[in-house]
Amino acid sequence: MSQCSFKVETYPLTQNSIGVGSNLKLFRLSWGLPGPRVFLPASVHGAEVQGNLVLYHLMKWAKENSFRGELCLAPFANPTGTTTKIGTQTYGRFNTVTGHNWNRNYHDLAKYLGAEKIQAFALKHKASSLEEIKQNFQLVLNEALDQIEKEEKNYGLKENGRLNWWLQKLSVESDIVLDLHTGPVACRYLYAPEALKESAKYLRIPYTLIVPHEFGGALDEAVFVPWTKLQEAFTKLGVNHPLLVESYTVEFGSEETISTTEAQIDLDRLLSYFHFKKIIDQAPRNEALKVAQYYGALKDYKTYYAPRGGLYEYKIKPGDRYLKGDVLASCLNFEGLNSLEKLSEQQTNLTAQQAGALINHCPSSVVGSGMELLQVMENLSMFD
Amino acid sequence: MSQCSFKVETYPLTQNSIGVGSNLKLFRLSWGLPGPRVFLPASVHGAEVQGNLVLYHLMKWAKENSFRGELCLAPFANPTGTTTKIGTQTYGRFNTVTGHNWNRNYHDLAKYLGAEKIQAFALKHKASSLEEIKQNFQLVLNEALDQIEKEEKNYGLKENGRLNWWLQKLSVESDIVLDLHTGPVACRYLYAPEALKESAKYLRIPYTLIVPHEFGGALDEAVFVPWTKLQEAFTKLGVNHPLLVESYTVEFGSEETISTTEAQIDLDRLLSYFHFKKIIDQAPRNEALKVAQYYGALKDYKTYYAPRGGLYEYKIKPGDRYLKGDVLASCLNFEGLNSLEKLSEQQTNLTAQQAGALINHCPSSVVGSGMELLQVMENLSMFD
Amino acid sequence: MSQCSFKVETYPLTQNSIGVGSNLKLFRLSWGLPGPRVFLPASVHGAEVQGNLVLYHLMKWAKENSFRGELCLAPFANPTGTTTKIGTQTYGRFNTVTGHNWNRNYHDLAKYLGAEKIQAFALKHKASSLEEIKQNFQLVLNEALDQIEKEEKNYGLKENGRLNWWLQKLSVESDIVLDLHTGPVACRYLYAPEALKESAKYLRIPYTLIVPHEFGGALDEAVFVPWTKLQEAFTKLGVNHPLLVESYTVEFGSEETISTTEAQIDLDRLLSYFHFKKIIDQAPRNEALKVAQYYGALKDYKTYYAPRGGLYEYKIKPGDRYLKGDVLASCLNFEGLNSLEKLSEQQTNLTAQQAGALINHCPSSVVGSGMELLQVMENLSMFD
Amino acid sequence: MSQCSFKVETYPLTQNSIGVGSNLKLFRLSWGLPGPRVFLPASVHGAEVQGNLVLYHLMKWAKENSFRGELCLAPFANPTGTTTKIGTQTYGRFNTVTGHNWNRNYHDLAKYLGAEKIQAFALKHKASSLEEIKQNFQLVLNEALDQIEKEEKNYGLKENGRLNWWLQKLSVESDIVLDLHTGPVACRYLYAPEALKESAKYLRIPYTLIVPHEFGGALDEAVFVPWTKLQEAFTKLGVNHPLLVESYTVEFGSEETISTTEAQIDLDRLLSYFHFKKIIDQAPRNEALKVAQYYGALKDYKTYYAPRGGLYEYKIKPGDRYLKGDVLASCLNFEGLNSLEKLSEQQTNLTAQQAGALINHCPSSVVGSGMELLQVMENLSMFD
Repeated sequence: MSQCSFKVETYPLTQNSIGVGSNLKLFRLSWGLPGPRVFLPASVHGAEVQGNLVLYHLMKWAKENSFRGELCLAPFANPTGTTTKIGTQTYGRFNTVTGHNWNRNYHDLAKYLGAEKIQAFALKHKASSLEEIKQNFQLVLNEALDQIEKEEKNYGLKENGRLNWWLQKLSVESDIVLDLHTGPVACRYLYAPEALKESAKYLRIPYTLIVPHEFGGALDEAVFVPWTKLQEAFTKLGVNHPLLVESYTVEFGSEETISTTEAQIDLDRLLSYFHFKKIIDQAPRNEALKVAQYYGALKDYKTYYAPRGGLYEYKIKPGDRYLKGDVLASCLNFEGLNSLEKLSEQQTNLTAQQAGALINHCPSSVVGSGMELLQVMENLSMFD
Repeated sequence: MSQCSFKVETYPLTQNSIGVGSNLKLFRLSWGLPGPRVFLPASVHGAEVQGNLVLYHLMKWAKENSFRGELCLAPFANPTGTTTKIGTQTYGRFNTVTGHNWNRNYHDLAKYLGAEKIQAFALKHKASSLEEIKQNFQLVLNEALDQIEKEEKNYGLKENGRLNWWLQKLSVESDIVLDLHTGPVACRYLYAPEALKESAKYLRIPYTLIVPHEFGGALDEAVFVPWTKLQEAFTKLGVNHPLLVESYTVEFGSEETISTTEAQIDLDRLLSYFHFKKIIDQAPRNEALKVAQYYGALKDYKTYYAPRGGLYEYKIKPGDRYLKGDVLASCLNFEGLNSLEKLSEQQTNLTAQQAGALINHCPSSVVGSGMELLQVMENLSMFD
Repeated sequence: MSQCSFKVETYPLTQNSIGVGSNLKLFRLSWGLPGPRVFLPASVHGAEVQGNLVLYHLMKWAKENSFRGELCLAPFANPTGTTTKIGTQTYGRFNTVTGHNWNRNYHDLAKYLGAEKIQAFALKHKASSLEEIKQNFQLVLNEALDQIEKEEKNYGLKENGRLNWWLQKLSVESDIVLDLHTGPVACRYLYAPEALKESAKYLRIPYTLIVPHEFGGALDEAVFVPWTKLQEAFTKLGVNHPLLVESYTVEFGSEETISTTEAQIDLDRLLSYFHFKKIIDQAPRNEALKVAQYYGALKDYKTYYAPRGGLYEYKIKPGDRYLKGDVLASCLNFEGLNSLEKLSEQQTNLTAQQAGALINHCPSSVVGSGMELLQVMENLSMFD
Repeated sequence: MSQCSFKVETYPLTQNSIGVGSNLKLFRLSWGLPGPRVFLPASVHGAEVQGNLVLYHLMKWAKENSFRGELCLAPFANPTGTTTKIGTQTYGRFNTVTGHNWNRNYHDLAKYLGAEKIQAFALKHKASSLEEIKQNFQLVLNEALDQIEKEEKNYGLKENGRLNWWLQKLSVESDIVLDLHTGPVACRYLYAPEALKESAKYLRIPYTLIVPHEFGGALDEAVFVPWTKLQEAFTKLGVNHPLLVESYTVEFGSEETISTTEAQIDLDRLLSYFHFKKIIDQAPRNEALKVAQYYGALKDYKTYYAPRGGLYEYKIKPGDRYLKGDVLASCLNFEGLNSLEKLSEQQTNLTAQQAGALINHCPSSVVGSGMELLQVMENLSMFD
């Protein structure tokens, strides 16, 4: 093949209240060379759109540069989420009817199969090659998803469930899943499972959250948890296998915004990882990738909830590090003001409980008490 | 005491973005006679308001009629939820910022304490009286809640969490909790834990969902689960104790609406239960309470998700029973219509998978595929 | 022609944020007999859906029964409005981004043309036949719309404007426009211009609001105002012409709901009017059409705004008449309650300022002060 | 008086659906020196919050620095608007129940009084001093507002109307009104009536929109229109009077955000104007005020509506000037993509129709066709 093949596939998602359907659209790109299948959905949270621009630039790149394996791109993976506008805001984090988070309703296939069945699978494949194990377990997961759909469809399929089912289906058929999200107002950061800490480094992202091997409902977990369970099953049999698939949630900056300048760096982040995975031969040379890289445990990813209601001014930027006691934000309201003497008391500072790095903050300065204000990483370590 | 004592308490919930606070308001009523403490919050889901009118009539009744114990009434228990209007609708089911359901963020105190600690408590109180056990375990639960707050408050308390914490705090101090909700468009129905199936009957509600002793995040479960765990711990020691507290979610009809006529019947439902619990001496005489009463397992409480998008006409009413194959709803859209010959195909029927009773349906006829359309109970049994 | 011809046309409206288009779909039905062109859009306010079901039944009827002229049906005329769900509610009254009411942004073509140009037209056609006048003035209006589009399109066309432009375009090409809406929770009622009071009667709707010949932004006005201005221009020349087009806003009950039983009566209302307009030969025989019919001036269509915030119980039904001083609604809150003595003061009554008929009320009982609570007609007269 | 007097006043606005009231809070500051009364409301559009921070700094300044006249500050002037959060967004531009813009429902007092009455007033005061005219006409306007309230209150007062009535009432009692708003993502700009073009300059704002003397519903217009009508009435009598009150809408940057750095410059903008109005003796010395200042007619304030739906990248910043044909934004979607050859066609550029300056753009990159994308000023002139 002397050029990149390009195929479009559509998967039916919903039919709206006047009968018009929406679809998940998948673009498959390949130069016909053997290699892993990489699945890259973008904007499953509908307002988190930078990944779509990155996929556009990835397609441009893929047209001109050969690579091994197959790239399966799903820009605008959540048509309902991205197109729901209330005011100028894109209301894409949760279903407006149910409140269900679009990235929390995947199936826990490890639980569905059960520990016993996974152990039996490992026993049966104790002597199998990694490739055989992979193909056969993908088959098992695929069948589990089909079975789940079959069980549910008599009473109809729920909207979030439908989207999540297709994305999980496409994930199960892939070797690598990079789910492209963003934070609210955020720096670049990454969710990586413990088993993939070393691979994760090659995405050249400044902050990495190391996720335990537990199911919490998100796509990255839905992908890796069955495989970590399988790994454990083999370990029980005295066989040590690497994790056979890779999955990450990649946070490309802030929601509601796109940037071509940043997209070109983000593309090189993906290419750096593709190079590590031997999908391409040459690593990108981009000075912007040479950043200090930190990681920390998910349990040390802390949320500051607003202690007062008022107008918040964020005093440090996402990506900045700070020390215990540093001012992170100030808050102003006029409640109780009855004398100019007390004026300066209307504005208070929020200070850091521990040293850390600011990962993201609320996109609005207008904040009621109890709202998520800041998210920070504490107890940071540095990649070598 | 020759008249009903009446006390007002307020608990701080949130401070909004201009600095104005909102409070949980509690009305405590008592004639000074020994008896159980009953906690009755209403409209924790902000649009589910009929319970507030019932509490109004309960206060009118309590003013004139003596009763044992204490009634702790929290009408408008969710100020944020009930006052959030988008269009004419009350957007009270979940937090508009986070999507978090207002009735799913209670603490699982059994899990927090841990099985070991509960077993140790049972061992220590193997020979204690029921009253001693109750008082001491309430103390344990109360301390657990205080500890949780202490652990969380450094990073601020989240909005839903704050409301739920106060409601759980007031529940822990009570002997009976009746959480007053409604369905969307619904008949009267009830959630009761397995252990309280017999008591539940005295609420004289036509449909009762029997809930397993598992924590799912709702208030009724948050209340009874630690006590069912304690019960199990005693059982392991060979001691059989009844459930020492009672908690229910009571669904008083449809959201967004109130009815005085129905409120008077609903009040008598509460009084019937109070009579059973020896809070009052005389049972209410209301012919409207003499209904056939059905119950079924929560696992047989099924949701029909809309299979198509379109305009739905609901063909049976909440509270009605139907047979397998009966038409439950019809759906109309004009998608694909290109000839009058095919016109009648635009309207399709949704038929019942199994026999059952319709409990509630979506308040709107304008429905996209995957929306919750109907909720039904199947495999019904009848109370004696 | 021995059967009804059926044509589908689509007009492009918007392209959403992922690039998917939405269209206005028009169904044209005709038996090939000369007669007026009737345009019937439904649910321009997206939640007001009963008209769609009526159009479905009208199509069924048209398939079997011949009629003169052409029926141009636009069910689901506002795809954005009908498909925007926030909670279970359809947020279809105004654009969620701009707040613009979907039925207030039509063009005031009389103003656009200017009084002078209309007078010149009348002078030129002083001796023309009614048919010539009609055809030529329709041409003038059509050109005005084209010109408006041309002027606006360099800077892009606004979303509401685009929908309204197409609907106005289709209206200008029609002889009769029946814009199918509903109230919030409402009886059947009608908006008719003064000049059409007598025709309006034949729609057999219990309440008719007589609208002055002024432009307020709605479709019915956008249609009739240029023609009433032309009529006035002829009158100045001493020529008395009837109004050459007819336009109404027809309110078929309550939003968010459909009813086949009611749709069959609504269809007969349309057929009764069609019979009067000689579109069909036989009037429908439906006892349900034999209702007392009232009318009143638009200036006597009054809104009661909620004087307090609280839970409202509506004490009379839409369509009911009441006397001055009658209780229309009650309102309950617990604000300031600090003693059982004062309990009954928490619930207050709203009484009628004048005698009238309740046309519609707010769909929710959860109401803040200043919300539209009730809409009533006062100073009613009865059609003969 | 050796220090600044400080008084707090509250005006009742609404009672929410659980009975809790909200108030307009006014802070009156004065050193007891004769001079004009300046009314400064902030965030009438609830998300436009920078003005509140400016008022905070103005209070700090006023505590330390004497000034003539009285400052009447209304931070958080729209409690409902600023506290309505949907997602993280503040939904403060229009009422979520009605869609009514919070800054479009003021009363057209000139129209209410009628041209005849204003002419009679001018005739009566032909020989009066400017001070007499001012006091007496303020009285007339005040009475008109009282009369309007009296006429409306029988049927209840609407929510937007209530807020607007109080703000108009406080405006009528003032000599200068500076209504503090912001754009969506915007530079600093100003709305000034034609008659105040010269005064406007002293606010040192880079872009000024010159507003004709017509009523469009906003506060600035509601304030100046009756006075421009009075001016015209005097002119008819051959008497030329200056405009006796001043009113502006001041746009302090972008919504949803606050900045102390910018607030200090914004404060100096106000002080520069106060110096011109002789409220203070010394002008602020701030290099940041020395900007090129442009003005243009409101009719040349153009909106670009999105011609396609997709992801927009804004290519120039608010405050930047551009030439005809310059790229203002790019738009990306993947609709219709079926070959890599066509990939680059998915991203298109929006170019400028005419030279101008970008004033603001949509806060989101996620845009459907027909949404307000950019607002620009064309045909700019420069202040001397």
